[in-house]
Amino acid sequence: MVDKLIEKIIELQNPTCVGLDTDFNYLPEEMKKDISTFEGAAEAIAEFNMNIIDKICDIVPSVKVQVAYYEMYGHAGMQAFEYTVNYARGRGLIVIADCKRNDIGSTAGCYSKAYLGKTSLNDKSLRAVEADMLTVNGYLGFDGIKPFIEDIKKYDKSIFALVKTSNPSSGEFQNLKLENGKFIYEQMGELVSEWGKDTIGKYGYSDVGAVVGATHPEEAERLRKQLSHTFFLIPGYGAQGGSAKMLKVCFDKNGLGGVVNSSRGIICAYKDVHYSGMNYADAARAACIDMQQDLAGVIGKMGK
Amino acid sequence: MVDKLIEKIIELQNPTCVGLDTDFNYLPEEMKKDISTFEGAAEAIAEFNMNIIDKICDIVPSVKVQVAYYEMYGHAGMQAFEYTVNYARGRGLIVIADCKRNDIGSTAGCYSKAYLGKTSLNDKSLRAVEADMLTVNGYLGFDGIKPFIEDIKKYDKSIFALVKTSNPSSGEFQNLKLENGKFIYEQMGELVSEWGKDTIGKYGYSDVGAVVGATHPEEAERLRKQLSHTFFLIPGYGAQGGSAKMLKVCFDKNGLGGVVNSSRGIICAYKDVHYSGMNYADAARAACIDMQQDLAGVIGKMGK
Repeated sequence: MVDKLIEKIIELQNPTCVGLDTDFNYLPEEMKKDISTFEGAAEAIAEFNMNIIDKICDIVPSVKVQVAYYEMYGHAGMQAFEYTVNYARGRGLIVIADCKRNDIGSTAGCYSKAYLGKTSLNDKSLRAVEADMLTVNGYLGFDGIKPFIEDIKKYDKSIFALVKTSNPSSGEFQNLKLENGKFIYEQMGELVSEWGKDTIGKYGYSDVGAVVGATHPEEAERLRKQLSHTFFLIPGYGAQGGSAKMLKVCFDKNGLGGVVNSSRGIICAYKDVHYSGMNYADAARAACIDMQQDLAGVIGKMGK
Repeated sequence: MVDKLIEKIIELQNPTCVGLDTDFNYLPEEMKKDISTFEGAAEAIAEFNMNIIDKICDIVPSVKVQVAYYEMYGHAGMQAFEYTVNYARGRGLIVIADCKRNDIGSTAGCYSKAYLGKTSLNDKSLRAVEADMLTVNGYLGFDGIKPFIEDIKKYDKSIFALVKTSNPSSGEFQNLKLENGKFIYEQMGELVSEWGKDTIGKYGYSDVGAVVGATHPEEAERLRKQLSHTFFLIPGYGAQGGSAKMLKVCFDKNGLGGVVNSSRGIICAYKDVHYSGMNYADAARAACIDMQQDLAGVIGKMGK
């Protein structure tokens, strides 16, 4: 699936991923009014997402749907999550389910079934929801990752494992140094690269990618040099403080190597004075255009 | 909440946690027959859980509900998860939501709302589901854990962070050595201990516990010595190969310090020749009694 994402990035000259981390509180007042149940909130969130997806699907290659923002509305929220993922795929977007799932082998297999594969039921196999890509956490080692890799190969999917996260205190653990001279995040990066070595596609990148925050350019630069076959999911642009200049180091000489997520910067753009007077969907589109120009200005031409 | 769990362990002289990792395929044939939708599967799973809970709630202190086994049936599965958690709490069990959630600050806050806290909706605050304890993954560092700790203090809850997991390849990452001489799992254990230092209860254990697999007794012993205030959630007993003898090292001189999970060993006991002729709920109860005797025989009296 990383090949398809790269092709869309080249086609649109845009490595943007729009983060649909849709908190009910982000919705315009008129959409929130009189809603007092999770079912009502979930429907409003799905409608909000749908209208944004309609306005951005021709200019961005991908969306990232952050499941935590749906789980907090219970099973009704999960229904909105499923609706959003399906709707975005129907509009041609590559959908990253941002779930950071992790567990031991058989249980990791359940997570893989939930988002990438199929769940068996008597003589049938059904999908709970079908995303194209899924974020995972590799703390448990390879047998926690293997079930995902099996589904990647079977259904043409991808995963991104956490390597260097965008949060301020990520270094508390990830930047500790190992006896072998590597930082923990580098070691995790190496494992991720190893786990993906059988899934390298035609652009030289594997279907086992890495989450590398835009807010830590020094680490990102080391990782880019070290992990030549690993595609990056880059959070932290915009609201979290990462700039296009800071994340340039994540890209290779062909302007490829990563997809850059912005969540609040896009879906809450309508609250920004810069986009005042626009409705939320038009503001999201305008913010995507600005982000594309910002990124392309620094990264240059994407693809040979 | 760790104090309440310890009190129940002392009262019942039983540190067992029953893992409700209820795969549809685990159900007896007559419960699976003719079911062809996730809604149908979810209802059958909830009924299966309910009948087991009714039979074990007077002899075990806690259950662990593994969310992956519900997520793979989509939002219908999540409804069964919520039902199971609520039903078990209603029967007086302490419920551990085994979700291994992790993300950066604001998003970790959403996960905390989903399982331990409340989600705001206009002028209301509602619960998606209320568990007593939640498993988390600390790879992101403290600001990914802080939102959970806030809810722990506000609502009297607990978390368990992954330290040394029970799967065969956990050492691939967790047993690498740091420059400071510690293994990664020890370093994570130290962080977990530090994160929990403000939440130590009357038995000397904090509400920020650690997941420590029964399958790795050497590491468990080191961790018990190192982390005198950290309560352990101990998976790996039974089907995964951990024995009572192996996990004795997780307990202190008062026979306290951890709760031991068994999933398939209990909920699939009816398939075991040892319990042949029993229905699944009676077999689960019998397996719980056997497990209590096995553990108590090795750990001794629980509580002073």
